[in-house]
Amino acid sequence: MTETRVADRQRIRDLILGYCRGVDRLDLDLVRAAYHPGGVDHHTGFDGPVEEYVPWLGRVLPRLDGTMHLVANHLVEFNGPRAVSETYGLAVHWGSPADDPALNFTSGFRYVDRLECRDGRWGIVERHAIREFTHSDAQRRVPAPAVGGSRNPGDPVFVQLARLRAGSAGW
Amino acid sequence: MTETRVADRQRIRDLILGYCRGVDRLDLDLVRAAYHPGGVDHHTGFDGPVEEYVPWLGRVLPRLDGTMHLVANHLVEFNGPRAVSETYGLAVHWGSPADDPALNFTSGFRYVDRLECRDGRWGIVERHAIREFTHSDAQRRVPAPAVGGSRNPGDPVFVQLARLRAGSAGW
Amino acid sequence: MTETRVADRQRIRDLILGYCRGVDRLDLDLVRAAYHPGGVDHHTGFDGPVEEYVPWLGRVLPRLDGTMHLVANHLVEFNGPRAVSETYGLAVHWGSPADDPALNFTSGFRYVDRLECRDGRWGIVERHAIREFTHSDAQRRVPAPAVGGSRNPGDPVFVQLARLRAGSAGW
Repeated sequence: MTETRVADRQRIRDLILGYCRGVDRLDLDLVRAAYHPGGVDHHTGFDGPVEEYVPWLGRVLPRLDGTMHLVANHLVEFNGPRAVSETYGLAVHWGSPADDPALNFTSGFRYVDRLECRDGRWGIVERHAIREFTHSDAQRRVPAPAVGGSRNPGDPVFVQLARLRAGSAGW
Repeated sequence: MTETRVADRQRIRDLILGYCRGVDRLDLDLVRAAYHPGGVDHHTGFDGPVEEYVPWLGRVLPRLDGTMHLVANHLVEFNGPRAVSETYGLAVHWGSPADDPALNFTSGFRYVDRLECRDGRWGIVERHAIREFTHSDAQRRVPAPAVGGSRNPGDPVFVQLARLRAGSAGW
Repeated sequence: MTETRVADRQRIRDLILGYCRGVDRLDLDLVRAAYHPGGVDHHTGFDGPVEEYVPWLGRVLPRLDGTMHLVANHLVEFNGPRAVSETYGLAVHWGSPADDPALNFTSGFRYVDRLECRDGRWGIVERHAIREFTHSDAQRRVPAPAVGGSRNPGDPVFVQLARLRAGSAGW
């Protein structure tokens, strides 16, 4: 493994984590940025190109109060400007009412992605999103936390990134 | 920390993730590849060398319908060609019937590994697999997913890796 | 992204994982080492500088039998010697009696950290610990594992690290 491939690994991992941040914060531009144009997604409940997948997400995600896509294992194999990446993760979903198992569940997923580097940018050309198991959280919900995240620019991560980019002395 | 150690970290992490892929896909060669010959495993229900551990896994894993070993934290400390690695993770197990707590549970594990680099290849020489907690999933199972993984070469990750390695124009 | 930033990423990730090891093993020096002096923590139930946060942790953690802070997604953005890091994770808590939901629960967290590199060392200057969801584990606990971790120097990770550092031939 060369040092360059360490950097490529990091870029591909960042792309996948950016996708998750986009879904969880409902920032659809971040979701779209993970794919090359025409990239295909095979998902539970959806099958088609990113140009249709992102609007579909925009319709179904607001039915939930929130999601958290926790990314664990990440293995990548390269062949020149092509790569196959396998990502393991947990997708936690919550909604109202809290005892509805269709809105409150955790699934174990694997993303098997075909990726290409075009003009120096890695992107997904095809994703298989495999669901390994689904567990209901309906009987497990504990009342709302003291400090929760949000799906708008007021979330702490966006506030702090804006301060970082501004480079203000008093950041 | 030197750049080389960044690459060594990556190699050790890949070795551990390869072990997990091997267990979850029931690909015992991948499991074996994580150890040096004679490497010892201290596990719940097993204690001995990899040459006995792998056949033992081959007997117990088929009793389950599936497993998912999600790897989180990974810290490594080096001393020349030796390293100690601590890996945090969740091991999700599922089986039939779905309400049997002996077949449907999640455990939090830590792998504390002693590793050596021999002839340029890192491998485990001793593993302590520590179980931190065990939670029953028996009352949480939701019916089978639309798209599940498999334990044979038809799993999407192996199909896509075969295409990548073949380097076909129409991959 | 330069190679150096790959190494900086690794250093920041190590710092966060060291924090988690410190909390889970009740090693408060490791917790403190993640912050610069005066670094501020905004946490459920606590708000103030690290000099007060660490003693507070030292009072509340022993009420539990154990914790496991599993770190998943980690995204970092840099601006010279400053960085903003977002970490996703699961915090699993267990205590006695096992059916008490106040002692047995899992929360999904995000750490949004402002970090600075001072004299070659990265440290947190401000942390927002956001709790995304909380799930009770009270009805899920399965009796104690065969091999568990500990909060003292006898834990396998500390035993193996001591052997590594000693560099003994018979490690």
